[in-house]
Amino acid sequence: MKKLFYLVAVISLILTMSCAHTGRLDSYAEDRAQIEDLQARYLFALDSFDMDTYVETFTEDGILDIVEYQVEGRDAIRKALEESRPVFDLSAGDIPEGSYPATGRHNITNIVIEVDGNKAYSRSYWFHYGNDNPERKAVLDAYGHYEDDLVKINGKWFFKKRVIYNEGVKGWISPPGNRAW
Amino acid sequence: MKKLFYLVAVISLILTMSCAHTGRLDSYAEDRAQIEDLQARYLFALDSFDMDTYVETFTEDGILDIVEYQVEGRDAIRKALEESRPVFDLSAGDIPEGSYPATGRHNITNIVIEVDGNKAYSRSYWFHYGNDNPERKAVLDAYGHYEDDLVKINGKWFFKKRVIYNEGVKGWISPPGNRAW
Amino acid sequence: MKKLFYLVAVISLILTMSCAHTGRLDSYAEDRAQIEDLQARYLFALDSFDMDTYVETFTEDGILDIVEYQVEGRDAIRKALEESRPVFDLSAGDIPEGSYPATGRHNITNIVIEVDGNKAYSRSYWFHYGNDNPERKAVLDAYGHYEDDLVKINGKWFFKKRVIYNEGVKGWISPPGNRAW
Repeated sequence: MKKLFYLVAVISLILTMSCAHTGRLDSYAEDRAQIEDLQARYLFALDSFDMDTYVETFTEDGILDIVEYQVEGRDAIRKALEESRPVFDLSAGDIPEGSYPATGRHNITNIVIEVDGNKAYSRSYWFHYGNDNPERKAVLDAYGHYEDDLVKINGKWFFKKRVIYNEGVKGWISPPGNRAW
Repeated sequence: MKKLFYLVAVISLILTMSCAHTGRLDSYAEDRAQIEDLQARYLFALDSFDMDTYVETFTEDGILDIVEYQVEGRDAIRKALEESRPVFDLSAGDIPEGSYPATGRHNITNIVIEVDGNKAYSRSYWFHYGNDNPERKAVLDAYGHYEDDLVKINGKWFFKKRVIYNEGVKGWISPPGNRAW
Repeated sequence: MKKLFYLVAVISLILTMSCAHTGRLDSYAEDRAQIEDLQARYLFALDSFDMDTYVETFTEDGILDIVEYQVEGRDAIRKALEESRPVFDLSAGDIPEGSYPATGRHNITNIVIEVDGNKAYSRSYWFHYGNDNPERKAVLDAYGHYEDDLVKINGKWFFKKRVIYNEGVKGWISPPGNRAW
């Protein structure tokens, strides 16, 4: 009977350790899943001008850098976004008779993520389309890429710093070379 | 010897419980991975008019809601898709001499997913491009977003309800505000 | 006391086995996460002509098949890419006075992945936009899909074979039917 206890206990220990090992390996998937979700929630908030949700994707002292300017902290980020809203809120434009408000949409693709404990680094592409024309025709109109530093606080990921490069504006374009790894 | 048994058993129990805890945390990644795969398989099936695979991404009583109409159940979904096929099957158009069949492709980006046990809620963007023109030139021609209720049955995720908003058709556009969270 | 040992050991074993089971389920998420990252790193490397990083996304004997030609091995892949670079390196074009180098960007969406141990199979869409025009205006100009065989070596995923279909060139278009599953 003692031998049986011993056997069961040892099998348990071995399985448990291999399981704990798997658990550690799996954490890239878990971190990546949560960061992908953050990236997507950021864009839904941006395109609908839900500024409360938008600024909460950043840490309290988060930095938004669009090359032209860099702002730090949620209040400053909100202020910068609200000031630039007239430029990119297509829904505020004239509505042709019988038509409806235009929209603009930012999309993210090609998400590269490296995780190092509670820090992560992400590179990704963005592009934008909208229908701010009389026919409400879909038009691709901008693209660039993101370079993000992220941090996990109490199990939740935030942007610590997001740099936005834009290939449509001189001076905002990407530095040369592979910006990922 | 008894003490050793006790020690091994208690260590096992502690490791196991911490591992089970990790397992729970990790399940967001697992659910998200499977739902992302479902989202992609849905679009491959749609664009190739593989209606068997398409309807099987829904539950038996699944609902497809394209705002204009709402259909319930796999048979009704298949019927609705087959009826609307002439509108969006670009490969059925005329082929210029020396050319080849046109194609149309739906793409998904910005996938936000919230999982609650065997239920999940997803918001995402879609856009469509095709080459139904004499030069087979790539043209972006439509975009909108998805609002999905999903359910996990026997470990496999299905669409319980998919609502498709389309910014190119008056009356099918998104309600105002942030449609994610 | 013996009964207590027995109870603790059996609870441990049950929890451990359920945990190991979860661990196995979770490996799809882990493999998918790493393959998604590979897919994205491939595209950053491609678009920046970082050929060292690009060829290292393939196995040593990896195959790149763009329908027109098929090349095998990292050296052959590098050579093929370097030969075709003039065609798709938009940054090499003329720069209008006061402007800046053009760019081209490949994007991946709709990633379907099936994992079978250390092998995986992926289907996905790609599209390309660029701004190789005097106004540096964003223009969608090509799309197609990828069919990939992948292999995991020492815990890291590589392309064993990537086939690239392109809907803009006669003879490079997709075979008919659903190319995923």
